[in-house]
Amino acid sequence: MFESAELGHQIGADSYEAEVPALREALLEAQLELVQSPRFAVVLIIAGMDGGGKGDVVNLLNEWMDPRYIQTHAPGLPSEIDLERPPMWRYWRELPPKGKIGIFFDALYTEAIRDRVFERIGNAELDQAMERINRFEKMLVDEGELVLKVWLHLSRKGQKKRFEKLQKDPATRWRVTKADWRNHEHYPEFRRVAERALRQTSSAEAPWGIIEGSDFRYRNLSLGKTLLSALQQRLNNQGEEALPVTVPPILPRIDSLNVLRCLDLTQSLGKKEYQKQLARWQGRLNRLSRRRKFGKLSVVVVFEGNDAAGKGGSIRRVTGALDARRYRVVPVAAPSDEELAHPYLWRFWRQLPGRGRLVIFDRSWYGRVLVERVEGLCAEVDWLRAYPEINDFEEQLVRHHTVVVKFWLAISKQEQYQRFQARETTPFKRFKITDEDWRNREKWELYEEAICDMVERTSTQVAPWTLVEANDKRFARIKVLRTLCERIEEALERL
Amino acid sequence: MFESAELGHQIGADSYEAEVPALREALLEAQLELVQSPRFAVVLIIAGMDGGGKGDVVNLLNEWMDPRYIQTHAPGLPSEIDLERPPMWRYWRELPPKGKIGIFFDALYTEAIRDRVFERIGNAELDQAMERINRFEKMLVDEGELVLKVWLHLSRKGQKKRFEKLQKDPATRWRVTKADWRNHEHYPEFRRVAERALRQTSSAEAPWGIIEGSDFRYRNLSLGKTLLSALQQRLNNQGEEALPVTVPPILPRIDSLNVLRCLDLTQSLGKKEYQKQLARWQGRLNRLSRRRKFGKLSVVVVFEGNDAAGKGGSIRRVTGALDARRYRVVPVAAPSDEELAHPYLWRFWRQLPGRGRLVIFDRSWYGRVLVERVEGLCAEVDWLRAYPEINDFEEQLVRHHTVVVKFWLAISKQEQYQRFQARETTPFKRFKITDEDWRNREKWELYEEAICDMVERTSTQVAPWTLVEANDKRFARIKVLRTLCERIEEALERL
Repeated sequence: MFESAELGHQIGADSYEAEVPALREALLEAQLELVQSPRFAVVLIIAGMDGGGKGDVVNLLNEWMDPRYIQTHAPGLPSEIDLERPPMWRYWRELPPKGKIGIFFDALYTEAIRDRVFERIGNAELDQAMERINRFEKMLVDEGELVLKVWLHLSRKGQKKRFEKLQKDPATRWRVTKADWRNHEHYPEFRRVAERALRQTSSAEAPWGIIEGSDFRYRNLSLGKTLLSALQQRLNNQGEEALPVTVPPILPRIDSLNVLRCLDLTQSLGKKEYQKQLARWQGRLNRLSRRRKFGKLSVVVVFEGNDAAGKGGSIRRVTGALDARRYRVVPVAAPSDEELAHPYLWRFWRQLPGRGRLVIFDRSWYGRVLVERVEGLCAEVDWLRAYPEINDFEEQLVRHHTVVVKFWLAISKQEQYQRFQARETTPFKRFKITDEDWRNREKWELYEEAICDMVERTSTQVAPWTLVEANDKRFARIKVLRTLCERIEEALERL
Repeated sequence: MFESAELGHQIGADSYEAEVPALREALLEAQLELVQSPRFAVVLIIAGMDGGGKGDVVNLLNEWMDPRYIQTHAPGLPSEIDLERPPMWRYWRELPPKGKIGIFFDALYTEAIRDRVFERIGNAELDQAMERINRFEKMLVDEGELVLKVWLHLSRKGQKKRFEKLQKDPATRWRVTKADWRNHEHYPEFRRVAERALRQTSSAEAPWGIIEGSDFRYRNLSLGKTLLSALQQRLNNQGEEALPVTVPPILPRIDSLNVLRCLDLTQSLGKKEYQKQLARWQGRLNRLSRRRKFGKLSVVVVFEGNDAAGKGGSIRRVTGALDARRYRVVPVAAPSDEELAHPYLWRFWRQLPGRGRLVIFDRSWYGRVLVERVEGLCAEVDWLRAYPEINDFEEQLVRHHTVVVKFWLAISKQEQYQRFQARETTPFKRFKITDEDWRNREKWELYEEAICDMVERTSTQVAPWTLVEANDKRFARIKVLRTLCERIEEALERL
């Protein structure tokens, strides 16, 4: 993999000087075209061997292009706030909006590679980390972003030579640290681990470009041309070209049996029994949230359901049991323009709770496979790929000690009709019913299909769906509270 | 101040039960009206004596109203990231958008009061903190937000009784901590310091409401009614009522002398001398940014100037001297919809750099007193109050070891004409010139007036303006680099 990048590539000063001006101009022009019509973001990942000139090329790109539309992200060690959330959170946060170039500098890959070299993790953990990055990059590509990955390579000899040269000059001496020399001693391990990491992440969507870093002219020209051709290709490709569908279509349904129709919606609870149960489960939830070990968990609760199924009322019974300092409710409506300029899941990543906290989503990322699917608000490929993306998202949460509890509040078509009617006649509730609600209702069967597909594809062992029979509000609320308590208890026991 | 709140106010259970249902319904209705037409945000500050029921009322409001449109913020101790920025940063971050209620729970006031009681700060620092809060609240009110401040009071006896009662019940015992009892011993100091704090912050715009907290019924009803009447008053006041102008108008100009006309725009630099100076000042800036002590500073650089004055080129000469990991350039264009839902300065607060970092603003918060003033994009009262708000903002930055460097790049009207012409004929630069630029140019004199007023009112000792003669680009770039170096050096020396 690295053979070609250890040959000692060089470019003469003359041909470098001759080529650079046109390259710079073309890069700047391409960048400004992107700024003018921000159809996608560029995610440029720069990694490589120490001494390979990573810092230099990042500075160079900022110099050659307009730095106002470049965001450089060099993460360093994760902060306290980062550590309370899944490892990818800090990269999600730094994703550039459409129209900008985000340079990820020694990010994403570096930590895992270093950890493997110094044997803080094994091969399995390395592979796991690479797989996580693969999924992240695939998601970016599917979202239409341009993902470029460049590895600046140096041979062992080349690295030594580079460090010695930097050390000789008083102006650059500070750049070679003790850690660099220590890493140099581990060069063979670094090369082996990097090879493994790159092999596993050289995907069709986002392959690695490996550039020899010893000669600055060769390195600069190679990187500049790589970026330029990728940019131009995407910019010239004006049409909204269909992405290849890699997900098989949904299986057709053969009979009329489905998880929703099997629910027993007649289940109910008397008022007195409800009061008793409510006190019992709210008390239990409150005590759970005050346990010392709860401070090591985060909780994400998702409320989805038919219109008028009683999400708001159920949420209030949950929050009623909790200290307001511990939770936040996030009502999900139309995305803001900042959210629209980022990949779909960005708006949910930015809301993730820290340790000892709950975030309750009133509607959620499932909008994509429900309303957006049924109403044709996104392409089929987009909602089809949402299933694995969502599973991946939730798995990352669960792995990071977040309890993910998802409720589908189900009512019958008849019950919905009665509730809509009631809303229209209560002055105080009239704002809760719109023409859109009536229109959605006409698509009841299409929604039913979408819900069943959603449950089938995203009810996983780590983040199962709980279907809540909600024709009777009291029954539904108790089932929600009880399930939530049980799921938190399980998680506390596993700690 | 607290006399009335130590009388032992009580409400009977019967009249409480009779009043609550209508109050809840009215509160919910008012809240939902706000959600439906989000004209303002509610900032509800809850503070008071320990044991006064602060936590209880916050939970109650979340129960009585719709928790999806309430954000509760209970800050705790500042995090690492908070500490790198001015103290108000963490409150700016948590401001609710229009349409929502943000509850600030033991925030803003609590830290300073506690610090004063335990003599970690003196009266001067307490007063300073209160003054900072006053300005913050005034800004919120001027931005149209509804600011409500409630102090839940307890007499010394009342506090003791409350703690004892909580301790007796196993279900609430955990709520009384050792710190609570220690604070109770300091009750007289708490009362005295709180009195001072409240006195200084009971402004006309945002007065304190003091509620006795010993009887939960009295406390709940009082708070609920206070919030309800404030909400209803604002909601019913549909018209965009003019705020009273408290700022005197700008003085009329008597002669034609002004700071811009006094600039010697003929100053220039030869190419060779420029290259020498560029290397010199870029090298100096680079070395400054690598000094160990630089890690204790933050730097905010503002670039403003006439259209086509060369801001972009100057910025590139600055970033060219720096490691890309250290800086971020923020181009300021139209605000996003999230930014529009918050007070004017919110979009700049959210960009503030951490320690050892620079943020470079390409255009800035001065837009309000320049383009927004001249083009009539905001009311006169709004740009008039922007001057003190901006001075306050910059002073907070400087006090918190942030170097604030502001450049006005000035060119002559004739020079601008030539640059516009050149832009129109260079294919590569054509996007940089729009009809709007030509239109702005027609208002040259109005802009000149606005610029002079801006310099007069916001060039302060802590954050002076540097006017840069920019008819000659080389001269301008060197002046920018030199000034930036000198300002950073001064700050490093003062450390």
